[in-house]
Amino acid sequence: MAQNIYDNPEFFAGYSQLPRQIHGLAGAPEWPAIRGLLPDLKGKRIADLGCGFGWASRWMREQGASSILGLDLSRNMIARARDDTADPAIEYRIADLETLDLPREAFDLVYSALAFHYIADFGRLIRMIHEAITPGGDLVFTIEHPVFMAAAHPHWLRDEDDRKTWPVNGYSVEGERRTDWFAKGVLKHHRTMATTLNTLIGAGFELRRIEEFAPSPDQIKQTPELAEELERPMMLLISAHKKGG
Amino acid sequence: MAQNIYDNPEFFAGYSQLPRQIHGLAGAPEWPAIRGLLPDLKGKRIADLGCGFGWASRWMREQGASSILGLDLSRNMIARARDDTADPAIEYRIADLETLDLPREAFDLVYSALAFHYIADFGRLIRMIHEAITPGGDLVFTIEHPVFMAAAHPHWLRDEDDRKTWPVNGYSVEGERRTDWFAKGVLKHHRTMATTLNTLIGAGFELRRIEEFAPSPDQIKQTPELAEELERPMMLLISAHKKGG
Repeated sequence: MAQNIYDNPEFFAGYSQLPRQIHGLAGAPEWPAIRGLLPDLKGKRIADLGCGFGWASRWMREQGASSILGLDLSRNMIARARDDTADPAIEYRIADLETLDLPREAFDLVYSALAFHYIADFGRLIRMIHEAITPGGDLVFTIEHPVFMAAAHPHWLRDEDDRKTWPVNGYSVEGERRTDWFAKGVLKHHRTMATTLNTLIGAGFELRRIEEFAPSPDQIKQTPELAEELERPMMLLISAHKKGG
Repeated sequence: MAQNIYDNPEFFAGYSQLPRQIHGLAGAPEWPAIRGLLPDLKGKRIADLGCGFGWASRWMREQGASSILGLDLSRNMIARARDDTADPAIEYRIADLETLDLPREAFDLVYSALAFHYIADFGRLIRMIHEAITPGGDLVFTIEHPVFMAAAHPHWLRDEDDRKTWPVNGYSVEGERRTDWFAKGVLKHHRTMATTLNTLIGAGFELRRIEEFAPSPDQIKQTPELAEELERPMMLLISAHKKGG
């Protein structure tokens, strides 16, 4: 199963203080870009894989989704997500994406934010998701960008002009990456951009749009520390469509 | 028009000594990966944009293509390409991809190797190519990878373990990049991966396969200096399909 770092008390204490956990979607600078990738949600049956505290699940329900199934490996996350809604059209369950089997053609949209880079077997996951989506439905997800994840020591350097510079090495060597982030040895799985996209195409998806999140001038004016996100892509956002329908 | 660095005598003297110019396709380590992206060439009408000395044009003709139109900005390249074939089914012409207009639906395949990163207006070029391809036809091209092109000072660094490490900065800031490569101030145009892929999708192409060239263990055994290509992607290879037909 995937490493359940989110139920590590040390990790969870730190993670819960991230702006995006305190302020929800408004605390995630990539949220406007994600919104731009989502189809009309009215009447849609949606699975939210790695739903965390349920911020996106609740928002999608408010946009008119007919049902939301929010899944997360973390008991902490699911407990708080359940506490935060009384809506019977939203169901939260503990589940491991590494072994999850969703019912066939049961969802119009599968959504996932910053979860798939924790999964070792991306091919299995994407084929299962393709089966679970109705023809004409969509998969919209975000992951850490492979440029952000690849290096053995992923931290800022300075170039000869003292400009913030991100290191890339081992890009083509896919597999485990361990970093310290609120806890020691958080386990992620690095895949190249090509592998990520070819896995989607191979499963039968048509790629609709790819975004490498970069902050807008307005976002940088409001939050100057976001400017470093122009230097290297940290997040990859993908919209993929299941043909037919 | 695009900068015509290939007709700079200093540049051309150096460039002509590259293994891929002396040995042709066998001197290009990414060639097996490109071959894997090409459709069956028998009977195909092909345009080769940035054909250089015509190595790929001649090879595609040998695979059974019915006609090849090879275009290049460089008089030097076109002169030598013409010298190297007497095949009436191969035509070479001087042309600037920045302003080129190909006839509508006249080609089954448009091929291009390492040329499009010299072009400022990629959107215009790709829309023109989409028009020039018959429904059901293909575009297969390679460019320098945006991770390779982005940084202000694109050269190897060493990380704290003395590992070869590639710098990335300015990734989201698209536009001109000038580097010294056989001549001073070679002008290239950096675009993100997202822009490259979304431009293709927006023009009506379906993405079929993306490759970020990495050498095989056999290639590294034969040419040990290729090992550094595992550290960061230098070339992006894309196969895109025009729907219909």
